[in-house]
Amino acid sequence: MDIIKETYEKIKNMEVRGAGRIARAAANALKEYAETIMHLDDEEFKKKILEAGELLRSARPTAVSLPNAVKYVLNGLKDENPKESVIKKAEEFIISSKNATKNIGKIGAKRIRDGYTILTHCNSEAAIEVIKTAYHEGKDIKVFCTETRPRNQGYLTAKALCDEGIDVTLIVDSAVRYFIKEVDIVVVGADAITANGCLVNKIGTSQIALIAHEARIPFLTAAETYKFHPKTIVGELIEIEERNPEEVVEFEGKYKKIKIRNPAFDVTPSQYIDAIITEIGLIPPQGAWYIIEKYFGWIEHEQ
Amino acid sequence: MDIIKETYEKIKNMEVRGAGRIARAAANALKEYAETIMHLDDEEFKKKILEAGELLRSARPTAVSLPNAVKYVLNGLKDENPKESVIKKAEEFIISSKNATKNIGKIGAKRIRDGYTILTHCNSEAAIEVIKTAYHEGKDIKVFCTETRPRNQGYLTAKALCDEGIDVTLIVDSAVRYFIKEVDIVVVGADAITANGCLVNKIGTSQIALIAHEARIPFLTAAETYKFHPKTIVGELIEIEERNPEEVVEFEGKYKKIKIRNPAFDVTPSQYIDAIITEIGLIPPQGAWYIIEKYFGWIEHEQ
Amino acid sequence: MDIIKETYEKIKNMEVRGAGRIARAAANALKEYAETIMHLDDEEFKKKILEAGELLRSARPTAVSLPNAVKYVLNGLKDENPKESVIKKAEEFIISSKNATKNIGKIGAKRIRDGYTILTHCNSEAAIEVIKTAYHEGKDIKVFCTETRPRNQGYLTAKALCDEGIDVTLIVDSAVRYFIKEVDIVVVGADAITANGCLVNKIGTSQIALIAHEARIPFLTAAETYKFHPKTIVGELIEIEERNPEEVVEFEGKYKKIKIRNPAFDVTPSQYIDAIITEIGLIPPQGAWYIIEKYFGWIEHEQ
Amino acid sequence: MDIIKETYEKIKNMEVRGAGRIARAAANALKEYAETIMHLDDEEFKKKILEAGELLRSARPTAVSLPNAVKYVLNGLKDENPKESVIKKAEEFIISSKNATKNIGKIGAKRIRDGYTILTHCNSEAAIEVIKTAYHEGKDIKVFCTETRPRNQGYLTAKALCDEGIDVTLIVDSAVRYFIKEVDIVVVGADAITANGCLVNKIGTSQIALIAHEARIPFLTAAETYKFHPKTIVGELIEIEERNPEEVVEFEGKYKKIKIRNPAFDVTPSQYIDAIITEIGLIPPQGAWYIIEKYFGWIEHEQ
Amino acid sequence: MDIIKETYEKIKNMEVRGAGRIARAAANALKEYAETIMHLDDEEFKKKILEAGELLRSARPTAVSLPNAVKYVLNGLKDENPKESVIKKAEEFIISSKNATKNIGKIGAKRIRDGYTILTHCNSEAAIEVIKTAYHEGKDIKVFCTETRPRNQGYLTAKALCDEGIDVTLIVDSAVRYFIKEVDIVVVGADAITANGCLVNKIGTSQIALIAHEARIPFLTAAETYKFHPKTIVGELIEIEERNPEEVVEFEGKYKKIKIRNPAFDVTPSQYIDAIITEIGLIPPQGAWYIIEKYFGWIEHEQ
Amino acid sequence: MDIIKETYEKIKNMEVRGAGRIARAAANALKEYAETIMHLDDEEFKKKILEAGELLRSARPTAVSLPNAVKYVLNGLKDENPKESVIKKAEEFIISSKNATKNIGKIGAKRIRDGYTILTHCNSEAAIEVIKTAYHEGKDIKVFCTETRPRNQGYLTAKALCDEGIDVTLIVDSAVRYFIKEVDIVVVGADAITANGCLVNKIGTSQIALIAHEARIPFLTAAETYKFHPKTIVGELIEIEERNPEEVVEFEGKYKKIKIRNPAFDVTPSQYIDAIITEIGLIPPQGAWYIIEKYFGWIEHEQ
Repeated sequence: MDIIKETYEKIKNMEVRGAGRIARAAANALKEYAETIMHLDDEEFKKKILEAGELLRSARPTAVSLPNAVKYVLNGLKDENPKESVIKKAEEFIISSKNATKNIGKIGAKRIRDGYTILTHCNSEAAIEVIKTAYHEGKDIKVFCTETRPRNQGYLTAKALCDEGIDVTLIVDSAVRYFIKEVDIVVVGADAITANGCLVNKIGTSQIALIAHEARIPFLTAAETYKFHPKTIVGELIEIEERNPEEVVEFEGKYKKIKIRNPAFDVTPSQYIDAIITEIGLIPPQGAWYIIEKYFGWIEHEQ
Repeated sequence: MDIIKETYEKIKNMEVRGAGRIARAAANALKEYAETIMHLDDEEFKKKILEAGELLRSARPTAVSLPNAVKYVLNGLKDENPKESVIKKAEEFIISSKNATKNIGKIGAKRIRDGYTILTHCNSEAAIEVIKTAYHEGKDIKVFCTETRPRNQGYLTAKALCDEGIDVTLIVDSAVRYFIKEVDIVVVGADAITANGCLVNKIGTSQIALIAHEARIPFLTAAETYKFHPKTIVGELIEIEERNPEEVVEFEGKYKKIKIRNPAFDVTPSQYIDAIITEIGLIPPQGAWYIIEKYFGWIEHEQ
Repeated sequence: MDIIKETYEKIKNMEVRGAGRIARAAANALKEYAETIMHLDDEEFKKKILEAGELLRSARPTAVSLPNAVKYVLNGLKDENPKESVIKKAEEFIISSKNATKNIGKIGAKRIRDGYTILTHCNSEAAIEVIKTAYHEGKDIKVFCTETRPRNQGYLTAKALCDEGIDVTLIVDSAVRYFIKEVDIVVVGADAITANGCLVNKIGTSQIALIAHEARIPFLTAAETYKFHPKTIVGELIEIEERNPEEVVEFEGKYKKIKIRNPAFDVTPSQYIDAIITEIGLIPPQGAWYIIEKYFGWIEHEQ
Repeated sequence: MDIIKETYEKIKNMEVRGAGRIARAAANALKEYAETIMHLDDEEFKKKILEAGELLRSARPTAVSLPNAVKYVLNGLKDENPKESVIKKAEEFIISSKNATKNIGKIGAKRIRDGYTILTHCNSEAAIEVIKTAYHEGKDIKVFCTETRPRNQGYLTAKALCDEGIDVTLIVDSAVRYFIKEVDIVVVGADAITANGCLVNKIGTSQIALIAHEARIPFLTAAETYKFHPKTIVGELIEIEERNPEEVVEFEGKYKKIKIRNPAFDVTPSQYIDAIITEIGLIPPQGAWYIIEKYFGWIEHEQ
Repeated sequence: MDIIKETYEKIKNMEVRGAGRIARAAANALKEYAETIMHLDDEEFKKKILEAGELLRSARPTAVSLPNAVKYVLNGLKDENPKESVIKKAEEFIISSKNATKNIGKIGAKRIRDGYTILTHCNSEAAIEVIKTAYHEGKDIKVFCTETRPRNQGYLTAKALCDEGIDVTLIVDSAVRYFIKEVDIVVVGADAITANGCLVNKIGTSQIALIAHEARIPFLTAAETYKFHPKTIVGELIEIEERNPEEVVEFEGKYKKIKIRNPAFDVTPSQYIDAIITEIGLIPPQGAWYIIEKYFGWIEHEQ
Repeated sequence: MDIIKETYEKIKNMEVRGAGRIARAAANALKEYAETIMHLDDEEFKKKILEAGELLRSARPTAVSLPNAVKYVLNGLKDENPKESVIKKAEEFIISSKNATKNIGKIGAKRIRDGYTILTHCNSEAAIEVIKTAYHEGKDIKVFCTETRPRNQGYLTAKALCDEGIDVTLIVDSAVRYFIKEVDIVVVGADAITANGCLVNKIGTSQIALIAHEARIPFLTAAETYKFHPKTIVGELIEIEERNPEEVVEFEGKYKKIKIRNPAFDVTPSQYIDAIITEIGLIPPQGAWYIIEKYFGWIEHEQ
C-alpha cells in the first residue's frame, strides 16, 4: 500500500501534475501494488485494489484523467484472473497514454492538406502536435494564433510553432471572424469532453467554434481519451472556474468600482464540433459517450 | 471664399476633428459663404457653391460625414431660390447634427427596459448616451463592457458609465458568448453604415453580433445619419485599415519572426442587426439605403 | 369644436369601437370641424386644428389607428391651402380606410393558388377576407384553423369560413407543426406592426411563424396601414397586456396555489414574415418604417 | 407454460398496463417459466423459450416495452448456459426497470442548477421525477407547465408539482415562445425513442423543442431504455394515432361541417434534442441506435 | 396614333425584342405621339395618352419592362404641364435605360476586388458587363461558369469572357457546391425582381444562391430597374414557364414513358440575395418595393 | 497461395469489378486459402493469412470494400481457434454481403409511405432497390430522377424504374430546388461513408442534400457496410477524383482556352443526412464510426 499512499501524496501535493502524468502515475501505482499482493484469493484481492483505487481517486477530485485511469485499470477486476488482468490493463493504459499525444498528432495531421491555413486558440500540447506533425510531413502551412486573453497563452503557441519554422500570425481574440475567410481548419485542444459531446476548453473557444460553423470551416478538437469526463454520463455538470480579476487588469484605485469577471473556460456545443481527434481515431462528438462507456466502463446496466 | 479655404485647412490639418464637428464646420462654411455672395444670378451662384463644396469635400476624402454634409446643403441648389435654400439647408443640418447624439440617446433608451443587462463594445459616444439616458430615466440596469483589445477602449467606457453610478462589469473579448445568457440587449456605435445595411465598426463587433444572433438577443447600433456611407450606394467597398502591430504587442527581439495583423474594424452583416438607432428614428438596416438617398440625395436617376 | 368633443367622448366611452371605425370617426370629426372654421388666417386655422387633433388623440392613448388618422389629416396643414388640404386628406383617409380590408382581400387572394391549403390563427377580419376572396374567385382551397386558446376565437373563424362553404379543419394550437407539411401558406391578421417590421398579434402567432419558417412555408400578415405603430419609429416598445387568468381556467379552490399567466399577444420578428398585405400593396416587413414615415409623416428631420 | 399464457392474457386484457409494468410482467413470466423447465437439453430449452417469447410479444403488438423485455431476456439463449442466463437476464431486467424512473430522476436532477426555471409539457412520470428530485435536493426552482390541449394533462402535472411545494405557473400551449426567455431548461417525457434518435411524444412536443432550439435552451427528454423502439432500427415508421375529435370540442349540431383532426403525438427530430436521460445515463440522441443494438440485441449481422 | 400602332405591332410581332429595347420603343412611341398632339386641353391630352399607353401595354402582357416604361412616362400626366412632362419623362427613361447596363457594370465592378474568383450562371448581359468592367479595370480575376442545362447558355458566357482574355473555368451545374470554397462572389442576372425582393431567373439560380448563403459568399444579382415586376406589388404571382421537354433530351422511342419536366426559371428568396445591382445604385432586396413605387409610381393610396 | 494470387490478379486487372464482388472475392480467397493450410500451429497460420491479406489489399488500394472484407475475415485470427474462425468469418461476410442490397431494399422501403414522391440522383443499385421494393409492396409512388451530368447516369435510373412500371419524371440537375416541395423523401446511394458520418457520392449529391435540408425533406443514403471507409477513422481524407474534361464537353478547337474541371464526387456533411440505410439496419450518420470499429475492428486501443 506504500506505493499507493506515496502516489496519492504526490498527486495531492501537485508534485505530479498534468492530466497525462497524473493518470499514468495512478495506473502505475495500481500495477505495482497489484504485483506486491500475493497469496490472496480473488475476492480479497479485489477488495484491496478497490480501496487503493478509491484513495487515489480522492487525491484530486476535479482532475478528469485520474478517475479514468483508475476505472480503466479496475475494469480488470471483472475478468477471470483479476490480478493478471489488472496488471495488463495498467500497462495497456500507460503505453496508450504515453503515445496518446503523438498518435493524435499523426491522426490529426492527416486532416491538414498541403497549403492549409490553420487557426488555433490558447496553448494546447495536442493541437500543437497536430500542427507540427503536418509541418514536418512537408506540408506548406500557415497558422493564426489568437492572443488568448487574459493570460496571453497564444504567445507561447506562436513562439513554439515559430521556433519550428512555421509561418505564424498573431491576432487579437476579436479578429477571428475578420480572418476566418483565410482559414481552412480550426484545431484546438480540450480540458474536458462531456458525455453528450461538448467541449470544455479555454474561454473564447466556443465563440471561435461558432464563427467556424458560420463560415463552414471544419472545427476539430484534439483530446486524449482520458480527457473524456466520466461523471457527465450520469448527468453531472462541469462547473466553470472563475479566476482572479487581476489576470484581466491590475487595479489602481480609481477603477475599484468596476467589477471584473474572469471565467477560465467555456462550453462548445457538440453541433459546432466536426470531429474529436483522439489517440484511438477520429470520432464524431456524439461518440464521446460511447468512449466513456466502452473504454472506461462507466455505465453499469444494474446501476 | 475665405471661410471655405479656412475651413478646408482646419479640417485638413485635423484642427477640426470628429465626424460630427467636421460635418458641421463644412455646412457652416457653405452657409457663411452663401450669405456673402450678392448680386449673382442663380447659375453663377450655383457654380460658386459647387466649387466650394468640391474643395471642402477634398479636405478629408475618407471621412464619411464630410461629403454627407456638403451634399445635404448642396441639395438646396435644386430649389427655386437656391441661395435661400442653401442657407436653410445648412442651418437645418447643423441643428440636426448638434442634437443627433442626444436624440439617439432618447430614442435608444426607449429600447432599454427596467432591469435590463446591456452589453457594449469599444467606446462609442452614441451607445454611451443611450445607456446613460436609460439610467437617468431611473431604470435599474447593468452593463457588460468588453476590454476591446488591442487598445482597451472598453476601460474608458467602463469608467465613463461607472462614474455615472451605473453597475459595470468588465470582461475579456473572448468571454462574450459565456455571458450572453445574462444579457438582454447589445448596443454598439458605428464608424460607418453601408447602403445595404452593414455596420463598419471596431474589430470584434461582428462576432458579438453573431453571438447575439445565435442567442436571439437584440443587437442595436447607434449611428448618426451622417455616418451612413454615401458612396456604398454606387457599389464602393469600404477598405478596412490595418494599424500598427505594436498596438497588439511590444516587440522584444526574439519574437521578431511572428507576424502580427491588426485590422481596426470589421463588417457586421445586416441580418445580424435588429435596428439602427438614428437621430431621426429607429430604422431597419435595410432602410440605410433609403436614408442615403432621401436625406443626402445621392441617387440620381440620370446618373 | 362640438363635433370634436362629441367624437372624443364616443371614442373614449367605447361607443365607437374597432381600429378602423375609431380612425374614420376622428378623420371625419376633423373634416367637419375644418369645414365650420371660417374667416380665419392660416396660422389661426392651424392652431385650432392642432388643438382638435390633440384632444382626439387623447381619447384612447393605446389605439394605434387613432394617432395615425389624426396625423394623416394634420399633414394637410403643411400645404399651401391648409383648410382645403385638411378636408381633402380627411376624405382620402376615410375612403382608403373604408376600402382597406376589401383591398387587402383582393391583393392577398392573389397569393393563394388553386389547390392551396391555408393555415390561420385567431379571428382576423383581414385574414378572413383574403381567404374568402380567394374562395369566391373559384379557387379550390382548404383551411386549417387553430383553436386559439384561451378564448377559442379559432372557432369563430372556422364557423365564418365554413358558412361560406369552405373546407375547414379545426386543430389544437399544439398541432401546428404536425400539420405544417400539408399547409401551403399561413395568413394571419395583425394588432400592430412596428417600425422594424415586427408583428404584434394574438399569443401563439410567433410560434406559428417560427414553424412556418422552419418548414419554408410563406407566412403573411394582413394589416391595414393604420395598424402600423407610429411611436415605434422613435424607439417605443409595445407593452404586452396580460389578461385575466380565469380566461385560462376557472378556479375551484384546491388549485389556488398554481399561478396562471395569460399574455394576450406576442411579437413575431420580421425575419419570419414574408410579406405584409396592406391595402396599398404587398410590402416586405422592412418597408413598415417607410409606410409610417411616408403616409403618416412621423419622422421629422428637425425632431 | 401456464405462467406465459396467464401473463399473455393479462397484458392482452389490459389487466397489466403501463410500459414498465408490461415489460416486467413479460420478463418475470419468462423467468418463472424457465425455472420450471427441467431435464431438457439446450436446444429444446431454447425452442420452448422462443415460443414463449413469441406468444408474449403478440399480446400487445404496439407496446414498445414488451418486445424489448422479451428480447433482453432471450439474449441469454446465446450464452453457454442458456437456462441460467435467461433467468439472470430476466432478473437483471426487472431490477433495472423497477429502478429506472428513480435513476432517471437522480441523473436528470443533476442538469437542474439552483435557481433554474424548467418548462415541461403534458404529464410525464419521468419528467416529474427529475423535477421533484431537483426540488428535494434543495434547489430553488420554478416550473412552467403547458395546458396540453386537448386533454389538459398539464393541469395534472401542475397539481402534482404544486402539491410538493414547487412554484408552478400554468400557461396555454401557445404561450411557450412568449415565456421561453425566462426558461433555463425544458424537460419532457417520451412515448417512444426511434433508432435515429427522434422522440415520439404528446402533440406539441416538437414545436416546444423547435422553440427551445431557436432560443438555445437545452431540451431534454426523460426516457427509460424500454421506450426505445426496436423495430425502427430496421426502418419501421411509427404510425401516429388520431384520437376522437370530441376530445377537442363537443359538438352541438351547427358546427357539424367543421372537420376536426386530433393527432395524439408528434415527432421531434434528433437535432432539437440535447440529451436523452435514461436510467443508464445521459446519452446523445444519436446513441439511441446503440442502446437498441447493445442492450436489446436487435441487430443481427446475419439478418 | 400611327407611331403607337406601329410600335404596338413591332413589339407584338417580336420585331422589337429584348427587355430594354421593348421598353425604349414604347417610351419613344409615347414621346413622338405626345409631340404630335396639338391644341388639346389637358384632359383630352391625358385621355389620348392613356389610351395609347393601354394599347402599347397589351402588346406583350408578360414582358415586365413594357408596363414599367409606359407607367414611367404616364406619371408625367400628373404634373402641371402634362404634355411637356410626358415628353421629358420619356426622354429620361430612354437615356437611363440605354445607359443602364453600362452603369450596372460600373457599380457592380466596385464589388469585385483584385484577386477575386467570381461564379456566374446562365448568360446575363448585365452580369457579364460587371465581370468585364472589373477585368478591364485591371483586376486579376477568375470566373467559374456553370453549364446551365438544358440549353447550355453557360458556354456562351464562358466564350464571351474568354474572348476578353479572362481566365474562365466551365463546370457542370452539379459542381457548384464543390467549388464554392474557391469562389469569392456570385454575380447573376435577372429575368424579374418582385416587390418583396425575390429574384426570378434561370432554373438553378435559387440553388446556387442557397449554396452561396450556406458558404457565406456574397450573392448579387444585376438587374436594370425595368426588370422590377410592377404587378407583384399588388400581390400578383409570377407564373414559371415550363418549356419543351426536348430541350432536355431528344426522344428515341423506347424512353417515351419517362416524363420530363423543364421549368425555365426558379425563384430565389430575398434572404439569399445580398444586394441588387441596378443602374441607380446597389440596393438591398427589401428596397425593390420602394423602387417599384417611387420610380414607376405603381402604388396609389386611393387604389 | 494460388487462390490468393489468382484473386489478386483478377481484382487488379478489373476482371472482378464492383464494390460487392471485389469484397466477396477477397473473402472467398482467404477462406479457400485457410482451408488448404494444414498441420501448422496457430502462429504460423496467422502469419500466412496476414501475408495473404496484405497481398489482396494491395490489388486495388482505393477500393473501400477490399480492406473491409480482408479486415473482417482477419478479425477471426484473434479468436481461440483461428483457422475455424477465419473460415467462419469469411462465410459470414460473403452471405451478409450477398444479401446486403436486398436487405437495404427491405429496410429502406419501410421509410417510403404510400403516396410518396421520391427523388434520387445518379444510378445507385441500392437506392433503386429501395424504390423498387417499395413499389412492389404495392405503394403508389412517384420518382424524380436527376439527369446527373456529365454522364447522364440519371437516364439509366429513370429507365430502370420505368421498366418496372414506376411513374418517373426526369429533370435537369438545376431543377432540384424547384421541385423539392413536391418531394417527400430523397434516397441516394454511396461511394463511401466516412468515420464522422459524411457521404462521398456522385458530384451534385451534397447540393441535393443541402436543398433537402433547407426544405426539411428527409435525406437518406443507402450504403452497404462495406462502403464505410476504414482509414477515415485514423484521420485519412478521401481524395476526390477529377475526370476527363471531355466528359463535360467535346472540344472543337475555338473553345480551347476555356478550362474545364470535372470532379466525379463531392462530400455531403453528416448534418444533412437523416439516416444511413445499411443491411444491418437504419443508423444515424454519427454511428458510422461505430460500424467501422465494431464490424471491421479498425480501432486498436494499443495502436
